[in-house]
Amino acid sequence: MFDILLSTQSEQPMYIQLYRQMRDQIRNGGISPGTRLPSVRSVQLQMNISKTPIETAYQMLLAEGYVHSKPRSGLYVIDPHTDKPASPAHPDHVRAFSAMHPTRAEPVPQKVAVDFDPSAVDESLFPLRIWRKMLHEALDSHAGVCRYGDAQGEYSLRLVLAEYLKNSRGVNCSPEQIVVGSGISYSIDVLSKLLSGRQTIGFEEPGFAPVREQFKHNGFQVIPIPVTDKGLSLDELEKSDANAVYVTPSHQFPLGPVMPYAERERLLAWARARRAYVLEDDYDGEFRYFGKPISSLQGIDRDGRVIYIGTFSKAFTPALRLNYMVLPVELAEKMQRMPYLLNSPSRIDQWAMQAFFEQGHWYRHIRRMRNAYRKKHQRFVEQLQLHFGERIEITGHSAGLHLLVTIRTDRCSRTLLELASQQGVRVYDFSQMWMETPRTPRYPQLYLGFGGTSERDIELGVKLLQKAWHEILV
Amino acid sequence: MFDILLSTQSEQPMYIQLYRQMRDQIRNGGISPGTRLPSVRSVQLQMNISKTPIETAYQMLLAEGYVHSKPRSGLYVIDPHTDKPASPAHPDHVRAFSAMHPTRAEPVPQKVAVDFDPSAVDESLFPLRIWRKMLHEALDSHAGVCRYGDAQGEYSLRLVLAEYLKNSRGVNCSPEQIVVGSGISYSIDVLSKLLSGRQTIGFEEPGFAPVREQFKHNGFQVIPIPVTDKGLSLDELEKSDANAVYVTPSHQFPLGPVMPYAERERLLAWARARRAYVLEDDYDGEFRYFGKPISSLQGIDRDGRVIYIGTFSKAFTPALRLNYMVLPVELAEKMQRMPYLLNSPSRIDQWAMQAFFEQGHWYRHIRRMRNAYRKKHQRFVEQLQLHFGERIEITGHSAGLHLLVTIRTDRCSRTLLELASQQGVRVYDFSQMWMETPRTPRYPQLYLGFGGTSERDIELGVKLLQKAWHEILV
Ligand SMILES: Cc1ncc(COP(=O)(O)O)c(C=O)c1O
Ligand SMILES: Cc1ncc(COP(=O)(O)O)c(C=O)c1O
Repeated sequence: MFDILLSTQSEQPMYIQLYRQMRDQIRNGGISPGTRLPSVRSVQLQMNISKTPIETAYQMLLAEGYVHSKPRSGLYVIDPHTDKPASPAHPDHVRAFSAMHPTRAEPVPQKVAVDFDPSAVDESLFPLRIWRKMLHEALDSHAGVCRYGDAQGEYSLRLVLAEYLKNSRGVNCSPEQIVVGSGISYSIDVLSKLLSGRQTIGFEEPGFAPVREQFKHNGFQVIPIPVTDKGLSLDELEKSDANAVYVTPSHQFPLGPVMPYAERERLLAWARARRAYVLEDDYDGEFRYFGKPISSLQGIDRDGRVIYIGTFSKAFTPALRLNYMVLPVELAEKMQRMPYLLNSPSRIDQWAMQAFFEQGHWYRHIRRMRNAYRKKHQRFVEQLQLHFGERIEITGHSAGLHLLVTIRTDRCSRTLLELASQQGVRVYDFSQMWMETPRTPRYPQLYLGFGGTSERDIELGVKLLQKAWHEILV
Repeated sequence: MFDILLSTQSEQPMYIQLYRQMRDQIRNGGISPGTRLPSVRSVQLQMNISKTPIETAYQMLLAEGYVHSKPRSGLYVIDPHTDKPASPAHPDHVRAFSAMHPTRAEPVPQKVAVDFDPSAVDESLFPLRIWRKMLHEALDSHAGVCRYGDAQGEYSLRLVLAEYLKNSRGVNCSPEQIVVGSGISYSIDVLSKLLSGRQTIGFEEPGFAPVREQFKHNGFQVIPIPVTDKGLSLDELEKSDANAVYVTPSHQFPLGPVMPYAERERLLAWARARRAYVLEDDYDGEFRYFGKPISSLQGIDRDGRVIYIGTFSKAFTPALRLNYMVLPVELAEKMQRMPYLLNSPSRIDQWAMQAFFEQGHWYRHIRRMRNAYRKKHQRFVEQLQLHFGERIEITGHSAGLHLLVTIRTDRCSRTLLELASQQGVRVYDFSQMWMETPRTPRYPQLYLGFGGTSERDIELGVKLLQKAWHEILV
């Protein structure tokens, strides 16, 4: 059996001592891959302790993916090198917020070789060492590590962001208009309170379901407005009763079109005439591969009708939960009169991000990511064309981290997902992004993300997809 | 003038180069304390650049407290050693979320020598080095630094918390019932959606205003229920129409009483009979100085009526914005059926906290803080008795990080605040914690926090208060 030393003198509770020692032995090979863990009962006898700490320790090892469970057999140690221990692919209890993973509805493949997850970003290029340094500096050089910060976000970070948004996205604002938050869900909650009274919101159809559902939770009536190849349909918006609207003009989510300049002016004119607010979700504005960068709607708004929302989830990492919103002056003033409305994320993270900008790392990082994603994107399109030729059509691919692919087959998207899954490939149909039953297009459409996939895996994945689907293509 | 080198080749925008170079020179003494910064115009001429980057850099230095502004004169460098540069006491634009700081309403003293801020914790004992190490390990040892985490909170952290809450607060729960969040304001937003349908909530009067206001924002009807020396009045609650109630039974905020066992059972019986929910806010349950520790309401609830909320803001630091909520099984199940409801804080911070527990640091930290606060608390009470004797009465002091002091004077609390302020001492009247006009007690009551104040400053502060008030005491 294992070498476990438990101490009753220790600061650490029993279950943690057990868990850590077993984990460390798994990590360093002391317990070899494939080993079956002894039963709770036998450890109990060996150690002469109660069952609870052993069960808890086992549960923790399972939750973190150090062991996996075989039904009616027990727990087995995973191979830390091939099985990616610390990040269990999709254990039952992990429910990702990610828009892309309303998990339970989708078939989860047994073993995922390639996951074209549209919410993933490239982990291999994450500036781990530098971020560590930034956190380090943040802790060392700031007084106030034990005080509440400004609930609107650290002023010094808002200053840096105002400057950045102006330079890179043409956004005009002062730090007083910026609200730092922990994700778009926070921004929507704050906005829902600021906009109370306006209870109808036009929403892209299909569109980003998490935001749509949240508006509903918050008591708004959501009006689906179809998306055309020029983004949200202005004809339909104008016909509707909406007095606010949510759009992703830089790269419509999920279909991909960019809203052209003329439509942007028309949208702003609509907002001006109705005194409506336009929510501009610029989630991946940093990544654009063709044509010149399109500046934000906010930047051409002269009437204070646009609320701009940006995020660090695409350009940096979604694990940090950091985003920002730019309010029109009128709403920023209203916000000042609503006490206790706001709740900022960790000051330490905010200071680290400020330093990341100040020391020039942000600009370097973005350039690096843009180049990497451009290459992956090119490779992806090229591989798809190579293996599928005319039998698929790729759209929505001038920007961002995913492609929309239309597949010429008489099967439905569900079947395509299942066939792919049997080959170990995960693709997404985004059916939950539709509010009403989608008008069925002639052929099924799927979403393939490439942000978190290496070029090698892109090649492999496309080959496997070809294998999965070749018999059903027309 | 200063030695500033600007490079147009640099990755860094001009204003950041300027800001950082000036900041560093202020830090290392290259620009000495008291120096007046050259005017924007003169820097512009010297450097031959536009005004905007200079103004931005100056604004940043001002925002971070490296310089202060004298009206009609300009910006002056602060003395980094005596003036606490990086943490400007209360610049206009810093609006603390802290319940205790609804700033604008209160008179802000020119120069605060001692701040008895009830929301402050002891910065000198913050385990900076260890926390840095935890962050470091979190970044190094976890895969998934570029992925969304579980929106309910990392499962492994929830496991550790379930065990901790059981041991230290008698809370019975599984990790599935825990929701990790970024502060009580997040928890209340989630709850408001889970409880939709129950629209009346009984609320301690006086009580924690941020939560009360948030329930109002969220469409609840809030019914004030008076607080007696046994906590929330059950007679009044039973008479009311409330079908939910918010309480702080371990240490009523702000008055201080502990709800006795008999009242707890009566409260639970009320909840059972009405199928009402009880929100237990256990914000400072870790700190209790007299009597035996009181376990949570949740721990004696047999009917799944209690929602338990805890925080890291008192026991660790409010800057981190990390808290947790324990839902009854019924609500946890309802939550599972509401997609996109949740949004967790940074995974990296959660991993760090998990390691902080696992390695035994948490238990050591709490013990250390409890001892330190017990000493400060004793010293504070002793000093107040020494300087004020019978002319004040101290209550609500068996737990937590603040005292409630009743002052025998015929002046109002506003006058006391102003007199204290003239001596450079900040104290708090918490008038905003009342929903309705407070029944005026015979004498004014003030709140004095000691968490963030050193023993030396406690002595100094009490002396200054004596000086401020001695002429008006009766
Ligand atoms: C359309 C859209 N908006 C916003 C976001 C960003 O959300 P958050 O900042 O909460 O991570 C995403 C991320 O996937 C998205 O796809
Ligand atoms: C009564 C009460 N509840 C809760 C909190 C904790 O709030 P949070 O966890 O959002 O920092 C505090 C902090 O001051 C408090 O006084």
